[in-house]
This record gives sequence, structure tokens and C-alpha cells, in this order.
Amino acid sequence: MREAFHEQLDSVFDDLAGICRSVEAAVRLATEALLTGDAEVAEQVISADVEIDRARERVEDKAFALLSLQQPVAGDLRTVVAALRMVSELERMGDLSVHVAKIARLRVPHVAVPEEIRPTVARMGAVAEDMVSRVSQIITGRDVEAAIALGRDDEEMDQLRRTSFVELLSDDWKHGVEAAVDIALLGRYYERIADHAVSVANRVVFVVTGQNPRAVGA
Amino acid sequence: MREAFHEQLDSVFDDLAGICRSVEAAVRLATEALLTGDAEVAEQVISADVEIDRARERVEDKAFALLSLQQPVAGDLRTVVAALRMVSELERMGDLSVHVAKIARLRVPHVAVPEEIRPTVARMGAVAEDMVSRVSQIITGRDVEAAIALGRDDEEMDQLRRTSFVELLSDDWKHGVEAAVDIALLGRYYERIADHAVSVANRVVFVVTGQNPRAVGA
Repeated sequence: MREAFHEQLDSVFDDLAGICRSVEAAVRLATEALLTGDAEVAEQVISADVEIDRARERVEDKAFALLSLQQPVAGDLRTVVAALRMVSELERMGDLSVHVAKIARLRVPHVAVPEEIRPTVARMGAVAEDMVSRVSQIITGRDVEAAIALGRDDEEMDQLRRTSFVELLSDDWKHGVEAAVDIALLGRYYERIADHAVSVANRVVFVVTGQNPRAVGA
Repeated sequence: MREAFHEQLDSVFDDLAGICRSVEAAVRLATEALLTGDAEVAEQVISADVEIDRARERVEDKAFALLSLQQPVAGDLRTVVAALRMVSELERMGDLSVHVAKIARLRVPHVAVPEEIRPTVARMGAVAEDMVSRVSQIITGRDVEAAIALGRDDEEMDQLRRTSFVELLSDDWKHGVEAAVDIALLGRYYERIADHAVSVANRVVFVVTGQNPRAVGA
């Protein structure tokens, strides 16, 4: 019984890692659409999101079956509930990628991001993609050290968001209100993707150690 | 045993309604700070958020105790998991109110929102506050009809956000990029508060009927 439980739990975590890889692709393609103004790539992100939603439902069904049929207690119970929370956050990261893709699509045939701020936004996209990529490895390897390191690296995203605000609020800004609003919202979406990535990684720390990251030296 | 379980579950739902009332106060005060530039009121929202976070932890502890000690199955299990999700969303709504209050505080002694767009932003705040207020009644009364009605009323918030964008992107906009960015982000925060309110109400529908709102005619 215990062995069957842990096999099924491993299968849930494999699914979570798979969803995380889909989110990673969504973040990468959304950023590509944003920086190139490619409508087809933006559409691809938007239409692929339904797959992430379906994968989320399958994980929820599995987790509920585990809770109902195996009646886990203590650490096992907390692990299944953590998995339910992780899948909600991963789905939300997919939604945020769709928001990025929709800003890209809205400005086609133009590129939403003015040229001089493109490096900052490109870096936001790269940091978000890298964080999501590391989260799928953290889930697969139950890697506590990598999870704690991820929490520390979140600061670059905050710094990038501040940089983008300095640029768009400077007297040199020549691209008007619309582009500034786009960039403020994009900064917010990437920041939230990064926040959720850290949160999912923290849940892995909790699942493995039974403690929150701060208690294990993060 | 079953009776003890349902008494404890009722106590969890009482706590959820209480947290929802704290969120309602946070939304109201954040909007007040925003429209008056009152730094003290903004600080009040920001410092009170720790109480919402603590209340969330207490609900989580109760819910885990219910799961561990009472081992609910089927509908009872789904209800406890729904309560865990509701408390996460309520805490998030508190965080979003803090974001609103922080924009207010950032612009003190000025008012972040230019005068001609204040009616639109005031209405966003009022709609959000009203939705959160209705959610606490929906939780207390397990009121499926009111929950379904709430989902329909979410449209006003979307419309207000569109209105604010039309105003700040018009040629008549004289308040520069900073105020426009503030209003775009404020619109996003209020919209997310409304989204979470609908989501919490939908979970009440699920708890009472065992079905998602669409299946019961929403």
C-alpha cells in the first residue's frame, strides 16, 4: 500500500515537471513573439494554453484519488496538498505567458517593445525562462539546494523591473503612453512568473525537508 | 465523528468569512488612500496585512488537522481542499490591496490618480469592495445563487478597465507616463481582486453543489 502510494506520488511529480516544461516553452515563445512581433508565435502560445489547463485537471484528479483511496497522513498528506498547490501555480504561470503573448499580438505588425528597451525586456524573458527551466529540474530531482538558490536569484528580476521603470519614466522616453503601459504590464507579468517559480521551488523544499526554505538556511 | 467533522468544517468557513471581511476593509482603505493621498491610511492597509497572513496560517493548520485526524473522503475531502484554496486566494486579495496602498503611498503628498480619471478608479474600488463584501456573505450563507450572480457582475470591472485605458491613451491625456503607468497597474490589481472574488464564490458553489458553476447554470 505504502509503495503503491509513493509510486503514484512520483507519477504526480513527473506530471508536474512535464507541465513546468510546457510553461517554459510558453514563456520562451511569448518572449519571442514580443520581441519580433510574430503573430503566429503569439497565437501558438495562446492556443497551447488549453493543454496546460487539461494537464492541470489530470494532476488534480490523480491527487484527489490519492487522498481518497490512500488516506495519507502527516508528511505524505502535506506532499499531496503541496502538489495541488504547485499545479495551480504552474497553470497561472501559463496564463501569465498568455498575457505576454496577447500584448505582442495586440501590436502586430509592430513590435510592442521600443528598440532601446528591448535588451531589458529580453533579459526579463530570459531570466523568467531560465527560472522555469530550473524549476522543472528541481521538481524532477527534488533538488533542495537548487530550489534555495533559485529564491536568491529572484532579485535580478526585481532589478530589471526597476531598470525598465527608470527608462520609461525618464525625460528621454519618446514612445508615448501606450508603449510605457505595455512595458509596465509586461514587467508585472514576468515578475509574477518569477514569483510563482520561487514559490513552486519552495514547495519542493517543503516536500523534501518538511520545512519551509527559511528554516533550512535560505 | 461525522458531527465533530462538520462542526470543525463550519468553524473553518467562519474563519474564511472573517478573513474576507478583513480583505474588504483592506480594499476600502486602500482605495481611500489612493483617492485622498492619505499616507496614514495607506500604512494602515500595509501593516494590517500581516494579520491576514496569520489568519491564513491558522485556517491552514485547522484544515490539515481535519484532513489528518478525520480522513474525509469524497465531498468532504473536496470541501476541505476547497477551503485551502479559498484561503490562498483571500490572502492574495489582501496582497493586491497592499499593492494599491503602496502606489498611494509612493505619490504622497500628491494623489496618484489625476482628477478626471478619479471617478473611474473610485468605481473600480467600489466594485471590488462590493464584490468582496458579497463573497463574505456567500461564504457565511453558502449562497449558491448569490455566487452565480457575482460571476455575472464581474463584467463591470472589465468595462471599467477598458474605460481607464481609453482615457489614458487618448490625445487629451496631460498627466504623462508616470500617472498612466500607475493607473494601468491599479486597473490590473483591482481586476485581479475581482477575479479572485469570483473564483472564491465559485468554490462555494462547488462545495455546496459538488459541481462547478457552469454545470449549475451560471
